[in-house]
Amino acid sequence: GMLVANHLVIFDADELTLNERQKSVISEVIHTQPRYVLGSRVFHPEDTIVKTPHNKIGGHNFTVMAGPCSVENEAMIQDLAVQVKAAGATVLRGGAFKPRTSPYDFQGLGETGLSYLRKAADATGLDVITEVMSPEQIPMMLPYTDIFQIGARNMQNFALLKAVGQTNKPVALKRGLAATVDEMLNAAEYIASQGNLQIILIERGIRSFDDKYSRNVLDVGAIPILQKLSHYPVLVDPSHAAGHADLVPIYGQAGVAAGAQGMIVEVHQNPSQAWSDAAQQLTPGTFKQMVVTTAKIHDLLVADQAAKN
Amino acid sequence: GMLVANHLVIFDADELTLNERQKSVISEVIHTQPRYVLGSRVFHPEDTIVKTPHNKIGGHNFTVMAGPCSVENEAMIQDLAVQVKAAGATVLRGGAFKPRTSPYDFQGLGETGLSYLRKAADATGLDVITEVMSPEQIPMMLPYTDIFQIGARNMQNFALLKAVGQTNKPVALKRGLAATVDEMLNAAEYIASQGNLQIILIERGIRSFDDKYSRNVLDVGAIPILQKLSHYPVLVDPSHAAGHADLVPIYGQAGVAAGAQGMIVEVHQNPSQAWSDAAQQLTPGTFKQMVVTTAKIHDLLVADQAAKN
Amino acid sequence: GMLVANHLVIFDADELTLNERQKSVISEVIHTQPRYVLGSRVFHPEDTIVKTPHNKIGGHNFTVMAGPCSVENEAMIQDLAVQVKAAGATVLRGGAFKPRTSPYDFQGLGETGLSYLRKAADATGLDVITEVMSPEQIPMMLPYTDIFQIGARNMQNFALLKAVGQTNKPVALKRGLAATVDEMLNAAEYIASQGNLQIILIERGIRSFDDKYSRNVLDVGAIPILQKLSHYPVLVDPSHAAGHADLVPIYGQAGVAAGAQGMIVEVHQNPSQAWSDAAQQLTPGTFKQMVVTTAKIHDLLVADQAAKN
Amino acid sequence: GMLVANHLVIFDADELTLNERQKSVISEVIHTQPRYVLGSRVFHPEDTIVKTPHNKIGGHNFTVMAGPCSVENEAMIQDLAVQVKAAGATVLRGGAFKPRTSPYDFQGLGETGLSYLRKAADATGLDVITEVMSPEQIPMMLPYTDIFQIGARNMQNFALLKAVGQTNKPVALKRGLAATVDEMLNAAEYIASQGNLQIILIERGIRSFDDKYSRNVLDVGAIPILQKLSHYPVLVDPSHAAGHADLVPIYGQAGVAAGAQGMIVEVHQNPSQAWSDAAQQLTPGTFKQMVVTTAKIHDLLVADQAAKN
Repeated sequence: GMLVANHLVIFDADELTLNERQKSVISEVIHTQPRYVLGSRVFHPEDTIVKTPHNKIGGHNFTVMAGPCSVENEAMIQDLAVQVKAAGATVLRGGAFKPRTSPYDFQGLGETGLSYLRKAADATGLDVITEVMSPEQIPMMLPYTDIFQIGARNMQNFALLKAVGQTNKPVALKRGLAATVDEMLNAAEYIASQGNLQIILIERGIRSFDDKYSRNVLDVGAIPILQKLSHYPVLVDPSHAAGHADLVPIYGQAGVAAGAQGMIVEVHQNPSQAWSDAAQQLTPGTFKQMVVTTAKIHDLLVADQAAKN
Repeated sequence: GMLVANHLVIFDADELTLNERQKSVISEVIHTQPRYVLGSRVFHPEDTIVKTPHNKIGGHNFTVMAGPCSVENEAMIQDLAVQVKAAGATVLRGGAFKPRTSPYDFQGLGETGLSYLRKAADATGLDVITEVMSPEQIPMMLPYTDIFQIGARNMQNFALLKAVGQTNKPVALKRGLAATVDEMLNAAEYIASQGNLQIILIERGIRSFDDKYSRNVLDVGAIPILQKLSHYPVLVDPSHAAGHADLVPIYGQAGVAAGAQGMIVEVHQNPSQAWSDAAQQLTPGTFKQMVVTTAKIHDLLVADQAAKN
Repeated sequence: GMLVANHLVIFDADELTLNERQKSVISEVIHTQPRYVLGSRVFHPEDTIVKTPHNKIGGHNFTVMAGPCSVENEAMIQDLAVQVKAAGATVLRGGAFKPRTSPYDFQGLGETGLSYLRKAADATGLDVITEVMSPEQIPMMLPYTDIFQIGARNMQNFALLKAVGQTNKPVALKRGLAATVDEMLNAAEYIASQGNLQIILIERGIRSFDDKYSRNVLDVGAIPILQKLSHYPVLVDPSHAAGHADLVPIYGQAGVAAGAQGMIVEVHQNPSQAWSDAAQQLTPGTFKQMVVTTAKIHDLLVADQAAKN
Repeated sequence: GMLVANHLVIFDADELTLNERQKSVISEVIHTQPRYVLGSRVFHPEDTIVKTPHNKIGGHNFTVMAGPCSVENEAMIQDLAVQVKAAGATVLRGGAFKPRTSPYDFQGLGETGLSYLRKAADATGLDVITEVMSPEQIPMMLPYTDIFQIGARNMQNFALLKAVGQTNKPVALKRGLAATVDEMLNAAEYIASQGNLQIILIERGIRSFDDKYSRNVLDVGAIPILQKLSHYPVLVDPSHAAGHADLVPIYGQAGVAAGAQGMIVEVHQNPSQAWSDAAQQLTPGTFKQMVVTTAKIHDLLVADQAAKN
C-alpha cells in the first residue's frame, strides 16, 4: 500500500477479504487500473507544470524544443541555438550520446558534445534537453542538461528510469515503438516512484505495417488519452514519427491540433550533410514557418476551450 | 500500355529491351511505382474536384458529411438531417446496408432505409452518401444515393470496385484496416480503370497493437501522403478511428490539421440508444462545436499556405 | 434467438430482464462470446469432417492441396496435376479469377481456366479448390469446383460469404491479413448462418511490421486457438505467408507441428516464369520432400496424442 | 573499416571514390546490408557452437532450458532443478531481477535469488541462465550465472549490450516485441563488437493486433531467417509468446519444427500460485511430455536433412 493525496492505496484490493470493521472505514473505492497511482489524474487532478530555468511546460503553455539530431561541433550548435531561438524555441535539443541501431554508426561526441550544447544554450538563454542512455552517465551529465531525455528504445529500461527518478531534473520520456499507453504510464511510474514527478511524455510515432512513405505512424490519439489518464504534459515529436522533412510540419500540426502542449523538432543548417537523421531534419527557415502555424493552432484550441467553459 | 495525358504508359518497362529506333522516340521516362497511373499526380497534377448536386469536394473546399451510423426510422433521419445541416454539414450519411462483424447483429433497414435517407436529404438540400456492399445492389441504389461509399472491409473487393467504377456517381473509398497507402491507391485504380475518376479517399484509422482506449490509430500521415501521390480529395473519418465519442472531435481536429479536405462524422440524437456504434456517435450539439473548431483550423491552414506561395 | 443442439440461444441475454417464471425454465447459462454459435465447440464438440468427392478433411486426416497460383494453360495444369498427385496431394488448387493488387496485373483466365482445372483434376482423381471473388460467379463456377475458396481480402465480404453459404459445396475461408481470430470465426458464421457448415479455415499469415525477409508472419498460434474455439478443420497456407520459396517448407512444418490438419501449397513447374507469385511457388521436387516431412510430423503428433489419451 | 576473416570490411563503401590503384587490390565486393559483419554468415559460414560448462548450444544440438519465471525461495528452485533435469533440461532458468511493467509488482529476490539458483544448478549438474538488467549488476552476477540473458525490453539497451559484450560469458539475446530481424542482428552486433561472439538468439513472439487468446504471435519464420543471415544458434521461447500454459507445448512444437536449436520454457510446481507469469508456466509433468514430442520433431528434421545432403 501507499499513501497518495490523503488516500491509502492498496494494490490488488480485489483479492483482499475485508472484515466488517475494515469495510466500515473505507469511504470510497477507486479502481485505478493499470496501477500508475502517482501519475494518475484520479489522485492529482491538476495539470503538472514542469519547471526548468527558462520554461514552464504543461497546462496551457506551448513549449518548443529544437536543435540538431547530433551535436557535430561547437560552431554548428552555437549558430543553431541562435536560429531556433529566433524561430520561437525555448529549449535546445541535441544528441551527444546517440542510440544507433548499428554499433558502426556515429555514436555521438560524448561529454565534449554536452559541453558545446551547454555553452550554446547559456549564450542564448535556452534550456538544454539531451538523451541519457545509461545510469552511470547521470552524474557526469547533471551540470550539462536541464532535462533528461529517455529514448524510445529505453522506455522500459527500468534501471535507467529509476536512476533518473532519483535526480531532481525533469525527465522527458519517449514512447516505445510498440508500447501501449498503459505501458508508457507504468514506465513513467518507475520514475515517479523514486520521487521525481517532473515528467514530460512524448508521443513520437509507433511502428506499423507501412513504412514506405512515413517512418512511423504518429498516434495522435495517444495525446488526449495520456492527458486524460495522467497529469503530465504531453509533447509531440513529429521528426522521428515522419522520418521525412516534408512531412514533419504536417505531423507537428496534427499533434498540436490533438492537444500536444509543445513539440520537439530536429533542425539542422544543412540537413543533407547531417551526421545522423539526414532525411528528417528541417532547415531553420522551414522550422520557423512551422512554429508560426502550430502556435496559431494551439492558441485557437485554447481560445475555443475557454469559450466552452 | 495505356495513353494518359499525352503520355504512353508502358507497364514493366524495365523489362523491355528497346532498339535504338524505339529509344529515339522516348522523350522522358517517368517511373510510377506502384502502378496507379490514373490516380497519380504525375499525369494529373491538379486536384480533382468531385462534384455532387450540392457540393464541390476537394481543392480548398472543406466538406462536412454527417449523420447516423444506421438509418433507424424515418423521423430520426429527417430530424438529424435538419440538425446536421444547421451545424454545417452538406452531405448526409446513413447506413441502410451495414457490414457487421457478426451475422446476428442489426444489418440495416435495406431499401426502406435508403428511401428515408433520400427524402430527408431532399427536404434539406443535402447530398446523400451511403455504403454499397455488393455489385448487385448498385442498380437499385442509384436513385437513392449521390455518393457510393466503399467500406474498409471491402477496400480490396475488386468486383465491387469495378462495378462502382462503371457508374457515373462519385465513390468514397475507405482505407482498409491494414491496407498500405499503395494498396489503397491501387484499389482506387480499379475504380478509375473503369472510367470513373470521381473518387474520394477516406482515412479512417488503422489497426494497431493497442485498442484499449482508442479503437484504431488515426494515421494522420496518410493524408498528406495520399494527397502528394494522387490528385483525389482526402477526407478524415474520426468516428470509426476513435470509437469513443469524447475522442472524435480531437481526431477530427488532427485530421484537418494534417490537411484533410473534409470529414465524415457519425451523429445521433441519442447515441447511447443507437442500434449500432453507440459508443462513438456525437450528439448534434457536440458535432456543431466540432465543425466550428475544425473549420477554423482548415481556414488557418489555407491562409498560411496562401501566404507562403 | 436460435435453436442449436437442443439449446435455445438468446443473443444479448445480459440485457434481458427475466421474470421468475422465465428463470425457472433455464437449466444452464453458457456465455458464448463472441457470437459464433454455429461454429462454436460449445454446441458442437466433435470435429467437423468436410467431405468432398475424394477427401475427408478434418479430424486426424492430413489433407494436402497443391497446384499453381494461376492456371496458365491446359498443358501446364494437366502436367502439374499428375506431379502433385504423385507427391501426395489429393486436392488440386489453381486460380482462374485472381485478386491482384493492381488492375493492370494478370487477372486470370476466367472460365477457360476453370475448365482446364476441372479436366486436369478429373483425369487424375483429384478434387478442385479455386477462388470465387463475387456472388454472381457462383452459378457458373458450380460445375467446375469442389471447394470454394474465399481469399484473405474477401474474408469480410459479407455478401460473398452469404452467397457461398447458400450453396452445398465446402468453403475454405482464408484469414484476412489483419483479422482477429474472433473476426474470422464471425466471418465463418456468415457462411454457417445460411445453412452451410462445410467450412475449412486457413491460416495464411498476418501482416506485421517486418516484411523484409518474409511476406507475412505465419500465426501458428491461431491454429490451435481456432481448433479449440470451433469444430472446423484448420489448414495452413505456408506459400502466401512466406512469400519466398525457400521458407515455404519450413512454414509448412511449423504449421503442421502446431496442429494444422493439412496444407495448401503453390507448386509450379518453373516458378521463376510463373505469371503470378513467381517468388513463392515450389518446384514439384521440393514440394514432394515437403509432403514427406510434414506428414511425418503430423503422424508423430497424432501418435503422441493417442498415447496421452 | 575492420578486418574480418581475412577480408577488410569498409563501411559505406558505396560512397567511396576509389582510384584505379585502390580498385586493383579489391578481389571481391560483398554487400552486407544491414551491417552486422561479425554476426553474418558471409564471413563466418559455420554454425557457432556456444559452450557452457555442461552444454554445447547450436549446430545439431537440441538444448532445453527450463525453470520458474522467478526464483521464489531456496526449496522451490532446488526441487524444480531436479524435476526439469529429469525431464530433459540441461540449463536452469530463473529470474532474480525481474523487468516488470509496473514498479509495484514483485521485482525479484536479487542476489539472494541468484545464490539459490546457483546452488540448485550445481547440485544437479545444470548450467544457469538468468536475466541481467543493468551494466552495474554484471560484476556481482558473474559467479552466479553461466549465461547472461538480455530481455526483450532491453534488446536495444546498447549500454547493456556493450557491457555483456565485454564479459567472457555467453549471452542469450531475446527479440524485442517490435524488433525487426535486422534490428535484432544489429543488437547482437553490439555484443559481438566488444569481442564476445558467444551469442544465442531467442525468438519469443512479437506484438500483434490480436492478443485475446495468445499474448504474442510466435514469429516462427524469424527462426530460419536468423539462421540463414547469421551463424548464431536460435532458440524459441514458447512461454512468453503464448502467455497461456495450454498453448506453450504447441508453440514449442512449431518453433522446433521451424528449426529452433532448443527452447527455453517456464516451469513451476504450482503455476497458479506463482509470484509472476502464473498463467503461462507449465507443470513439470506437462513440460516432460513437451520435451519428448519436441525432441522427436528435432530428430526427425535432422534425419531428413541428413538424408537430403
